[in-house]
Parts: sequence; structure tokens; C-alpha cells
Amino acid sequence: MSSHARSPQSRTPSDDLDQVAELGQQFRVDAIRMSTAAGSGHPTSSLSAAELLAVLAARHLRYDWQHPSNPGNDHLVMSKGHASPLLYAMFKAAGVVSDYELMTTYRRIGSPWEGHPTPALPWVDVATGSLGQGLPDAVGIALAGMHLEKAPYRVWVLCGDSELAEGSMWEALDKAAYFRLRNLTVLVDVNRLGMRGPTELEWDLPAYARRVAAFGCRHLEVDGHDVAAIDAALQEAVDLDQPTVLLAKTRKGHGFTGFEDAEGWHGKVLPPDIAEQAIAELGGPRELSLPRSLPAACPPAPPHPNRPVTLPEYPAGSRIATRTAFGDTLASLGSALPRLVVVDGEVGNSTHADAFAAMHPERYFDVFTAEQQMVATAIGLSVRGFIPFAATFGAFLTRAHDFIRMAAVSRANIRLVGTHAGVEVGPDGASQMALEDLAMMRAVHGSTVLYPSDATSTSYLVQAMAERSGVVYLRATRGAYPVLYEPGEPFPIGGAKLLRSSSHDQVTLIGAGVTTHSCLEAAQLLETEGIVARVIDLYSVKPIDSKTLQDAAEATHGRLVVAEDHHPEGGLGDAVLAALNSTSTTARVEHLAVRVRPGSGSPPELIDEVGLGARHIVAASHRLLGGGS
Amino acid sequence: MSSHARSPQSRTPSDDLDQVAELGQQFRVDAIRMSTAAGSGHPTSSLSAAELLAVLAARHLRYDWQHPSNPGNDHLVMSKGHASPLLYAMFKAAGVVSDYELMTTYRRIGSPWEGHPTPALPWVDVATGSLGQGLPDAVGIALAGMHLEKAPYRVWVLCGDSELAEGSMWEALDKAAYFRLRNLTVLVDVNRLGMRGPTELEWDLPAYARRVAAFGCRHLEVDGHDVAAIDAALQEAVDLDQPTVLLAKTRKGHGFTGFEDAEGWHGKVLPPDIAEQAIAELGGPRELSLPRSLPAACPPAPPHPNRPVTLPEYPAGSRIATRTAFGDTLASLGSALPRLVVVDGEVGNSTHADAFAAMHPERYFDVFTAEQQMVATAIGLSVRGFIPFAATFGAFLTRAHDFIRMAAVSRANIRLVGTHAGVEVGPDGASQMALEDLAMMRAVHGSTVLYPSDATSTSYLVQAMAERSGVVYLRATRGAYPVLYEPGEPFPIGGAKLLRSSSHDQVTLIGAGVTTHSCLEAAQLLETEGIVARVIDLYSVKPIDSKTLQDAAEATHGRLVVAEDHHPEGGLGDAVLAALNSTSTTARVEHLAVRVRPGSGSPPELIDEVGLGARHIVAASHRLLGGGS
Repeated sequence: MSSHARSPQSRTPSDDLDQVAELGQQFRVDAIRMSTAAGSGHPTSSLSAAELLAVLAARHLRYDWQHPSNPGNDHLVMSKGHASPLLYAMFKAAGVVSDYELMTTYRRIGSPWEGHPTPALPWVDVATGSLGQGLPDAVGIALAGMHLEKAPYRVWVLCGDSELAEGSMWEALDKAAYFRLRNLTVLVDVNRLGMRGPTELEWDLPAYARRVAAFGCRHLEVDGHDVAAIDAALQEAVDLDQPTVLLAKTRKGHGFTGFEDAEGWHGKVLPPDIAEQAIAELGGPRELSLPRSLPAACPPAPPHPNRPVTLPEYPAGSRIATRTAFGDTLASLGSALPRLVVVDGEVGNSTHADAFAAMHPERYFDVFTAEQQMVATAIGLSVRGFIPFAATFGAFLTRAHDFIRMAAVSRANIRLVGTHAGVEVGPDGASQMALEDLAMMRAVHGSTVLYPSDATSTSYLVQAMAERSGVVYLRATRGAYPVLYEPGEPFPIGGAKLLRSSSHDQVTLIGAGVTTHSCLEAAQLLETEGIVARVIDLYSVKPIDSKTLQDAAEATHGRLVVAEDHHPEGGLGDAVLAALNSTSTTARVEHLAVRVRPGSGSPPELIDEVGLGARHIVAASHRLLGGGS
Repeated sequence: MSSHARSPQSRTPSDDLDQVAELGQQFRVDAIRMSTAAGSGHPTSSLSAAELLAVLAARHLRYDWQHPSNPGNDHLVMSKGHASPLLYAMFKAAGVVSDYELMTTYRRIGSPWEGHPTPALPWVDVATGSLGQGLPDAVGIALAGMHLEKAPYRVWVLCGDSELAEGSMWEALDKAAYFRLRNLTVLVDVNRLGMRGPTELEWDLPAYARRVAAFGCRHLEVDGHDVAAIDAALQEAVDLDQPTVLLAKTRKGHGFTGFEDAEGWHGKVLPPDIAEQAIAELGGPRELSLPRSLPAACPPAPPHPNRPVTLPEYPAGSRIATRTAFGDTLASLGSALPRLVVVDGEVGNSTHADAFAAMHPERYFDVFTAEQQMVATAIGLSVRGFIPFAATFGAFLTRAHDFIRMAAVSRANIRLVGTHAGVEVGPDGASQMALEDLAMMRAVHGSTVLYPSDATSTSYLVQAMAERSGVVYLRATRGAYPVLYEPGEPFPIGGAKLLRSSSHDQVTLIGAGVTTHSCLEAAQLLETEGIVARVIDLYSVKPIDSKTLQDAAEATHGRLVVAEDHHPEGGLGDAVLAALNSTSTTARVEHLAVRVRPGSGSPPELIDEVGLGARHIVAASHRLLGGGS
């Protein structure tokens, strides 16, 4: 008998499988009542999985409902987030929400009982609703339990069949097998119908089974409305030494003949009179509660006090790539912060994340070239309170945009690092150049966007990232550039640095990352012409240092040049204009950005070709000063 | 014998397989010479696939090298784009580029011989270099040949093994099988080594084979350095009635003992002296040419002249959702434009793309919930000159961001429609709300971004999209709002509409989509206070009508309110500020946007809660007018 078996003492009421079936019917009734009361929702998608969730909740899920933060609790991820009425019906049976609250606030303004579950509810770990994300996130949670915490909690995921069309699900199953996550059980509600009509594979369970097996996971096939079969399968899954996928054949809308297995009912609610019929057909409301369940005793986390951080130091003037400083710092931080974990997308030797791998291999996970799973793993690690960093080329973070967007809805604390930013990449060409990442990352709710120019500031900011909540992004450069700052210089998030300033500055040059160096060079050139330029290193793109920008605009008569190695939209230029506008500062900004489709070339050639060289900044300054160019 | 078999007459020189092996050696030598001359590149990744490409090019690829636009040409997609030296070595053997040009311009500034191939070269269909995209794009090309053109061309894809970790590859193989693309042959160069080190599956060809089979494609396993075996396998692939994946076991860097099957050599070039040794070991340079090859005769496209377009008409004042107008218009356009094709992500009943499906089922392809493949299919259709539209919820287009970014590098002409924009989605909550899409789409090079407010303008703009090149995006709203414009009103891309204006306007209210209606309502409220407001419907977000914005700013003393149902960064507000800055217009913009993490609620409640209601626009106007709020 596996250590995961139920304790009969604590579960007596549910030992009667008929009662579990009744619980499933109760979930159905409540899902219909809830969605009809709200006037929107997905009752049919809830009804198909009622037995799956009833058996799981009553007989296998070990969860201390009054203490959702109990570290021994199992995790239940509702990957098919649109079946929120089902999940919430289960929460009601768990006694954490009243029937009244659900019937009056589901999907209403201000309610945590949202249309798709989010961690606004303490029993929800990650937001779902964009298909194909719950399972990938769950892989991250299971990875933490299996390989970092060595804790006994299990991770259960309820998926829809439609979402198995998302490639991200196969990245997830592949990694579940690769990391041998035997603590992960995936229940797939194969109800045959998607939103428009039949799914691609309908009820071809053997086809799904072949895919699951080929990706290295175990599979079990059951009738998803047979509580005894589900119960046996879940027990078998727990006993198996591999991640397991339970393929459950179900009928969408099962339990009400009015819409069972019928097309055209996705996301549609029953009008009140029909809902009444359906509830009658289902035997009316019930008031069953989940049996009391106890989480597995979670061993206390071993004492891993944070140690003082010793950051790497770089002598001013030496040439170091910011990606190198990122890797060095990550490795140092890893020694100080035992909960820091790194996720790689098979490019650690280029992002330099592998400097961490060399020192802390047990906290380094390479998911190979699967950027969606890379970000999802970080989200899952965040659920368990780790401090995840995930790094790849900035260009390839676009692959995970939907996951990054949802990380913000999930209140996840993840740190993303995108190296090889901009045309500075050089000969590899456009496919490798992040030219859209600042726009992507700025628009994420609650995000922080950092873009250091040198190794010293990178080191400071990487440390600051570890303490920052939300989605935190650092953009790093491929090439080596001079260290601009002395060790120990602070770089508060939301700040900016004046690299050159005087009481008689005539124009302000604003850069970040590689363009800071162009701005400094331009200021020197301007100086030879007798023009005094202020230079701002805008290392914190979001939040932005509006005060420093405002002061500079006022000091230099509104003459600002912004240079950024990014397409013109959504990046540094837009951020500066928004900051100036918010402070009611009048300025004229010469905005230099990548306005072409770049090709290959050496970094200096490309920077010059796209108009980000010192000479272009000088010419822009001349335009502002009225001297032509 | 299949109709695809070679014609011996045209291929005589290559009937000698020893010569094909020699050609492979030539490719190796040239790949080393080219990358060493450039000082960067991926020789080892090129060498592993030399026989694969030599056999394909010499004996199976039917291509009129002097006429790359010949519609009968086969398509060769280099999914492992970093092996560009190998591809270019083949182009040299095809006689379309001189050795001198490659040795002096590969990866150099201004050269079309970029680090990763792009359609800057007429023999390249799509840009590659972001792993996991070439095969998905190729599925779109093959789909066109198989189901739209019924043309005899074949589509060949050369993939790396690392990229099989990307979920997008499995979306692609799944769809290759689903659409029965027997004209597609995928060659996988299983060289065991990725960038950091060994791949997840290394040389476990049976594991790959199980996955390929489970996803519905045929697989063949060969020694990737055995030209006879490759030749037989490719012939078998052509004869098979299914999409076929050739799993070729290879050795990275094969042919030079100095780096063959060695770690630490990814993306590294040989210094000149070692390159000389390697070339000697490979038997020195050769001057072999590809045999002349003739494309299959492509039947002339049947006469399908465009017919006049009859757009749907909507009476002003009636309430119609813009997504409904999108679907109606798409259906009408489909009758007029025989090359218009629609790709759906299993949400056509909600985006209303299925209005097209009902009328033109033969030009409608549902790839199910696989947004990466949805966009890739559109890119592939664009390669064959079709007019693809792809539609899903705007939020879920973020799933395909990397593909959209690369579509611009590919010079693809694709039209994307994202419905259910913003908090206007209502009770479904944040996961379904596009709040980052404008930032994403604006930052794409050469993109067009449209956001109509009513059915009439939507209809006009959808028609305009069909004629527009590049990546063209239209953002649509879930709910039904009043039709603002009379049928026949033109909406040029790059324009804006003054919905209210006079010679004594005091403040300008700028909206797009749903906020246009808030602005109109606010203007009415302001009017009751004796304040005259100008209202701009900024339906064209990129390009933007700077002149109309400038005129409005000047007319209303720089007082502008911008309201957008999007996060504050990268969207309408940033676009307006950039436009004003570019025209040196001084203005003070009150920027109303979604600055919270929204939950559920009714659309009007949410619009009010996030501060986009008429009362918020009125208050913002008061702030600008100095009257407080």
C-alpha cells in the first residue's frame, strides 16, 4: 500500500462510493444553479467532470481546507478553468464558501469567484482560462515537491480534451516524464466537444493514450462517470512510479438530457425554467460535505537561512557583458539564497545562467528548448515559495507571452532574463534579436522592466530582482562593454543614473543598455563642439524615474534624445514620453529606435546602420538645438 | 511508380550516389569555409545534415533555380535555420550564388546572406532561426498545395532535433496528419547535441518514432550519413500516402575529427588554420553542381477572377458587435476574393469567423486550439500567395507572439483578428481579456493595427486588410454597440474620424473601439455643463493620423483625453503621445487605461470600475480644464 493511501479514519463518509456519486450530482446541480444565477458560465463543461472531481475531492485529495497555506496540502490545478462552477461547487462542499455567496456573487463585480479561477481565492494556486497552461504550471509545482522540497504532497490537474491540441501540453508531459514526477496525476475530461463542435480526436482515447505513452507518461483509461472506476484509477495512479494521465471518457453536460453530448451548448447557461427541469432531473439540490481530509505531514523545511550576499565586483573600465554579470551574480546569489532556483531553455551557456548550474546543480533545471514550459515551471516554483529565475534569449521569451501575461493574473513572482537584446546581437540576424520584448514586458500588469548598461548595475539589479514581487524582467546584452560604475554603487528599482550632468546642460541624452554607451560617446563628441550634454542611464524602464526625466527636461529646455535598441513602439521612447506627460513636462523628444527590419552585420555596424550610433545621437541633438544636422 | 518520381533524363549526373556523397563533402567544405570567413556561424550543425541535403537537392527536390517564383517548384524550409552555411552551400551548387559572394558577404552588413535565412533571398520562403517554426510554416504551405491548389509541388523541411522539444512542432505534426498532407516530408537531423550539451532524447530514435507515430505521421529511420539509405527513404516518403518524418541519426560536425560529436562546439567557427586542416580531412574543395531539376508542371490556377465586393450594411444606431461585422464581412469578401482563406483556432463561433465557414467551407481551416499553428498556417498560405485571415480571442494571440514577430522577418502578408478585447469581455474575467495585444502588435515591424468602434468601420477595415501587406491586426469587441457610421463611409488606414467637432472645442476626447462610445457619452455629459468636446475615433492605431491629433491638440489648447481598454503601456496612449511628439505638438494628455488586474463583472460595470466610463472621461476633462474633478 502506498504511503499516499487514504486514512480510513479521516474519510469515513466517503467510503461509500454511492455517496461520492451523490456528491457528483450535487456538483452538477450547484454548477447549473451558479451559472444560471450569474447568467453566464460553462455548465456543460462542468457537468462532464463532476464524478472526476467528486472522487478526487472525497477520496484522494489531501487538503486542510481551513488552512490553504498548509505546506503539506496537495495541489489541485483546474487546467480547464472554464469549469469554474464545478470547482466552486467543490469548494462549497469543502465548507469554505456558502451557497449564498456563490449564488449571489459568482462572476459578479468585485467578487473573488471569477469566471475563471484565480488566486484571488486562497485555494487556487494559478490562474487558468487560457487553455494549455494549468498542466505546465502544475509540472513546476510537482518539480518543487519532487526535487527541491522532497515533500509528500501530490499535484492533481484536471484538464479538458480541447487543450491537448496546445503544444504546451506536450512540452509539459514531456518534462513530467523527464523529471520523473510521480507525484503528478493528470485527469483528462475527454468530453468530445470543444467550443465550436467536436474536438479533433473526439472519443479516440487510444489515440490520446499513444501520445501520452510516447511522451513518457503512464496512462489509464476509464469511464469518467463511473465513480468506482475513477477511484481505482486514481489509487493506481498514486501507486505508480511515473506521472500518470487518466483519460476519462465523459459526456459534456452529462446528467441533463436537455444538453448532454449536444453541440452548441459550450459556454451557454440554462434559462431559469430549464435549469429547474435540469435540477429536477438530477434529483434536486443536496447538502453533502467533503469528508475531512488531512494533508500529509510535510517535513519542516530544513534550516536554510539566507546568508549574506557577496556580489561579484567589476573594475570600472573593464569590458564585461551584462549577460556575464547576470550569470556571475546568479551564482553568488544562489549561495546566499537557498530558495533561488534557475530554469533554463537550453541556452544557459549563452545566457550565462549556467554559471549558477556549475555551483548549484541541484537547483538548476534545464527544460530544453521549450520556452512555454520554462516560464510555466517558474510559475509553479513560485507557487511553492521559491525564487525562480528563468532565462533565454529575449527574442524567445515572446514564445511564452501568453504564460507571462497569465503569470500576472496568477500573482506569480517570477524573474525573467532575456539576453541578446536588439540589433546588438550582430551577425546572427533578426530571428535572434529581441526588438519587441520591452513592449511585451511593459504591458504586463504589475511588471518591472530593467535594462542595465554595465556589469556593476546588472549585478545590483539581479540581486534586487530576487526580492521583487510580480513579473520582473531584465534585458541583457550580448557584447562586452565598459563597466561604468564602481562596485557598491546602488541602483534602486525606479531610479536612473546621471552619467554626465552640469548646471549648464543644453541637451539630455537618454539611453539604456547598449545605447547608454552610444549616448556617452555622443556627449564626448558634442563636447568637442562646445555643446554640453546630460546623459541619463535609464536602467529602470518600469517603474521609471519620472523626476529625473522631468528635471532633465527642465534643465535642458525640453531637449531630449532617446536612443533604444528596440522597435519604436512600446519601449524606452514610449516610456519616456508617458513619464514626461504624467509630470506635465513639456519636451521635444528625438526618438532613435530600430525602424527597419535588420539583417546581419557586426554589432557596431548594425547599431550605426539602424541609426543608434553616437553620430546619430549627435545629429539628433543638433536638430533639437536648431543647428540642423 | 509515384508521379513524384524523378525523371532520369533530367537528373543523370546524380544517378551516381558516390557523386552525391561528394556533393555532401563539398557542402561541408563550403560550410566551414563560409563560417570561418565570416568569423561566426554554425559549421557543426551544418555538417551533420550534409548528406541529408545533398541527397534531397540532387535527387528529389524539383526546383527551377533560375525561376524561384515558378509555382511548380517544390518548397524547402530550413527549420534549423542556424545551418545556413549548409543551405547556402547548396544554393552555390545550384548556381545561384558565387563562391566569392558567399565567402565575402555571408553574415556581413547589407548582405542577403544573413546568419539565419530570410526571404531576402528569393529561394527562401520563410525566415527561420527561432526553433520550432519552420515545420509549422511548412504545414501551411503543404496545406495550400494539397487542399487549395491541388498542385503537385512537395514541401520538404529540414529540422534539428533540439527543436522537437518545442510544443509547436507537435501542433504541426498533428495538423500534418489531420489534414493528410502527404506532400510533406520532414527530415530530422538527429545529431544528439544541442547548444548546451546533449538533447533530451539524444540518439533515441525509437522514442522520436513513437511520438511521430502517435501524432499520426509516418516515420522512417536512417543513418543520416548513408546517401543510399537516405535516397531510398526519401523515395519511400514520396510514395507514402501520409506525411512522413525521416529520423536521421547523424553526428554533429561529422567529417572533421576535430569537433565531430563533441560538446562545446555549437555555434563556434574554426580558426583559419584549423579550418584548413578540416578542409584537407574532407578532401578539399570541390566544384560540383546540382543536376538540372525541373519542377512538376503546375496546372495553371483555375480562373477565379475577383468579383466586386458587396459589403454588409448596418443601419446607424442599430447595435452590432464588431466581431459580428468581422464575420459578416469575411463571408462577403470570400465570395469576391477567391484567394481569401480563413484559419480558425476552434473559436469561430465566437469570433464569428464561422460566418465564412458556412459560405466557403473549402477555404476554412480549423486547427483547433493551437494558436501557434494557426498563425504558422497563415504564414504558409501567404507563401503561396493566398490572402489568409486568422482569428481568435485577442488574448490568445499572445500565444503566437514569436510566430507573429517572425512573420514580419518572413515578409509574410497575414491578417490577424483578435476578438474579445479588453475588460469589455466582462464576466469571463482576466484570462480572456486582451489587455496587452496593442502593445504586442504595434511593436511588430511593419505592422498595421486597427481597432474599429462600430460595424460599418469594421466592415470597411476588414476589406482594407485583405489588400494590405505585412502583419495586419484588427482588434474587435465582444459586445454589441451602436453603429456610428452610415454605410459607404470610408475608413482609410492611417486615418481617424472626428465624431464631434466645432470651431470652439475646449477638449479632445480620443477613443478607439469600445471607448469611442464612452467618449461620445462623455461629450454629451460635458455639453450639459456647457463644455464643448471634440471626439476622435482613432480606429487606425498604426499607422496613426498624426495630423488629426495635431489639429485637435492645437484647437483644444493641448487638452486631450485618451481612453483605452488596454493596459497603459504600449497601446493607444503611447501611440498618441508618440504621434504628438513626432509633430512637435505640445499637449497634456489625460491617459485613462486599465491600471488594475481586472476580475469579472458586467462589461459596463468593469468599464466603470477600471476608470474608462463616461464619468471618468468627464472628470479627466475637468482636470485638463482646470476645474478639478
